[in-house]
Parts: sequence; structure tokens; C-alpha cells
Amino acid sequence: MTACFFVFEVIVIKELEDKILKEGQVLPGNVLKVGSFLNQQIDIDILMKMGAEIARLYADSGVNKILTVEASGIAVAVAAANFLKTPIVFAKKSRSSNVTGEVYSAKVESFTHGTVNNIIVSKDFLKRDDRVLIVDDFLANGNALVGLSDLVRDAGATIVGAAVAIEKGFQKGGDDLRAKGMRIESLAIIDNMSDGEIVFRQQ
Amino acid sequence: MTACFFVFEVIVIKELEDKILKEGQVLPGNVLKVGSFLNQQIDIDILMKMGAEIARLYADSGVNKILTVEASGIAVAVAAANFLKTPIVFAKKSRSSNVTGEVYSAKVESFTHGTVNNIIVSKDFLKRDDRVLIVDDFLANGNALVGLSDLVRDAGATIVGAAVAIEKGFQKGGDDLRAKGMRIESLAIIDNMSDGEIVFRQQ
Repeated sequence: MTACFFVFEVIVIKELEDKILKEGQVLPGNVLKVGSFLNQQIDIDILMKMGAEIARLYADSGVNKILTVEASGIAVAVAAANFLKTPIVFAKKSRSSNVTGEVYSAKVESFTHGTVNNIIVSKDFLKRDDRVLIVDDFLANGNALVGLSDLVRDAGATIVGAAVAIEKGFQKGGDDLRAKGMRIESLAIIDNMSDGEIVFRQQ
Repeated sequence: MTACFFVFEVIVIKELEDKILKEGQVLPGNVLKVGSFLNQQIDIDILMKMGAEIARLYADSGVNKILTVEASGIAVAVAAANFLKTPIVFAKKSRSSNVTGEVYSAKVESFTHGTVNNIIVSKDFLKRDDRVLIVDDFLANGNALVGLSDLVRDAGATIVGAAVAIEKGFQKGGDDLRAKGMRIESLAIIDNMSDGEIVFRQQ
């Protein structure tokens, strides 16, 4: 079983890295465009494989809830939840008329949108005894992860760790959070793309 | 096989209706709050069953792409795509720095947010030969479906139909679109909730 899982892990990560190299576009301002398979069009095959790999990594963590933030984090969260068999909660960026009652809220600056959002989650869906896995599609400066962690802490719940599809390792958000003791699993980590060439961290 | 599918269909729809009755809250202004299992917290078990049912309904449609709009439509779209084995494309409500190049756009009024959004999708991800299934979590006045249909038509692609988790039948968006010849499959249709009591349409 372990050997089988190990082979699966290597295949998923290699496949994701190949996809990033083949379809990813490096844009000015350190923006990586992976809209063809991750955050505008979604390749369901690689998405579900990523979900299986996140589930393998956190299988023994006691996770009972996945937390993400709308919008593109939702797909990765659903894929992971399909294998971990946990509910997903997604924080919203605005209060709509179907979010009622008390909420936890945190401020998050968006790297791609260049805006500051208040993310909110209803207090009904994060409880003190929850063991929460934070999931997102991208990790860059770590602002979304910090905001989501704030929501979990406000609820008095436990963070078992975070899982993201692609980390921009050169932006240090992930490494800063790891240095503070947070478990962060990134399926692909890009350590350099400054010359338009993508260099992955060996994991 | 057919008999087996039929039993599955009945179970999924019954389970969804039971969940709506048990956990749904009718709020003033004809808002149905199903945040506990569909659009803030997501029950992964019923979500994937809904995906399987949508896939069963559209198995013979030749669908090769699922189109939804962020945010809560994404979860239902991923679940359906998992069984239909098609890519998902989600329209965005704002142009972020990772959406570049030419886009199709349409105006959509949001019932729950009380706002008008321009939804956009990159021209790279909707092509003339696509056979598109439109998926969303809710169908009320039909604005989102009309906007998404506009995007597909602008691309010269074919709409095979739409699938939604919950339709508010009394708001007529679904029936108006059916009258115009669009195939719409709603897993649960609420025909009345004006007294706070939810009445489902027999399908």
C-alpha cells in the first residue's frame, strides 16, 4: 500500500509539473497563468488526482473539515474532500443575502486582483472541535492562508495544515508560514520564474 | 443497468429534497438558505451524488465541456465533471490579472447579492465545436443561465442543456427557458415556499 501510494505521489507531482511547463504562461509581475487547467478551465483528471494526493498527505491528520476561499480554491477543495470524505466550507468575499447571522471575518489582500477583501464565514460552520485543513489553488505571499488561519483561530478550532496546488516558492509566503510551524503541502513549488523559465523545487 | 440507474436517481432526488426540508431555511424575500450543505458548507457525499445524477441525465448528450460561474456553481460543476470526464470552465465576475487576452462577456443580475455583474470567460476556453452543459447550484429568475448561454452563443458553440441543484420553480426562470426549448434538468424544484413551508414539484 505504501509503495503504491509513493508511486502515485510521484506520478501526480510529475504530471502537474509537466502541465505547468507545457501550459503555464509567465506574465509580467510574477503572475503565472494556469487558466487552461486550474483556475479558469479545469482539467478534471489532474484535479481529482491532486485531490487524491492531498488526501494521502493528510490521511492521518484527523481532519474533519476543509476550509477554502471562493472562487478557484473551491475546485481543489472539492477534489480533496472527495477522498477525505469531509465537508468543505468556503469563506466568501462579500456578504450575500443568504449569509445570515454571526460571522468570523479576516482581511486578505489578493495578489492577482490587487484588492483587499474581507473574507467571511458563518460561525455555524467552524466549531471549536473542528480539525481544519486549509486548501487553495495558489500560495504566493501567503495572505489567503493567513486570513483563513485567522478564521480558524477565531473559531477556536485546530489547523491540521494547508494544501495547495501550486506554490510560488520565491514569494516566501509558504516558507514563512512553515518557519512558524504550520504544515504546508504544496503539490508543485516554483522556486524561480524570473527569466520566464519555470524552475521547480525538488521535494 | 437502466434499472440500477433509475433507483439511484430516485434516491439522490429524495435525499436532496430531505436535506432541503431538514436544513434549508426560508428567509424573507424568497431567499432559501442552504448554506449548511450546498453554498457555504458543502456536504461532499450529496454533492458527488448530484454530480453522478447530472452525468446520468446528460450521458448521451455529447457534452464535452461544463460551463459554470463562480463561486458556488464550481462545486456542482466539479462533481458533474468527475463523472462526465469533461473539463470545466467557470466564468468570472471580475477580470483579474491572470485573465488576459480576449473574452466573451455578458451581464448577469444576482438575485442573492442584488447587484449586476459582468461575467467573462476567455475566448481560449469556449470554441465553436464545444458542446456545453451549463451547471449551477441555483436557478431562480434564470439570469445566470441566460448570461452563461449568451457566452456560449457568442462563441458559436452548442448548448446541450443546463443542470442545477435547486430550482425555485415559482420564480419562472426555468419554465421560461424550457418554453424557449432549452433542456433544463433541476435535481429539486421548489414550487412554493411562500408560507415558509417548502413544496416540491413532482418530477
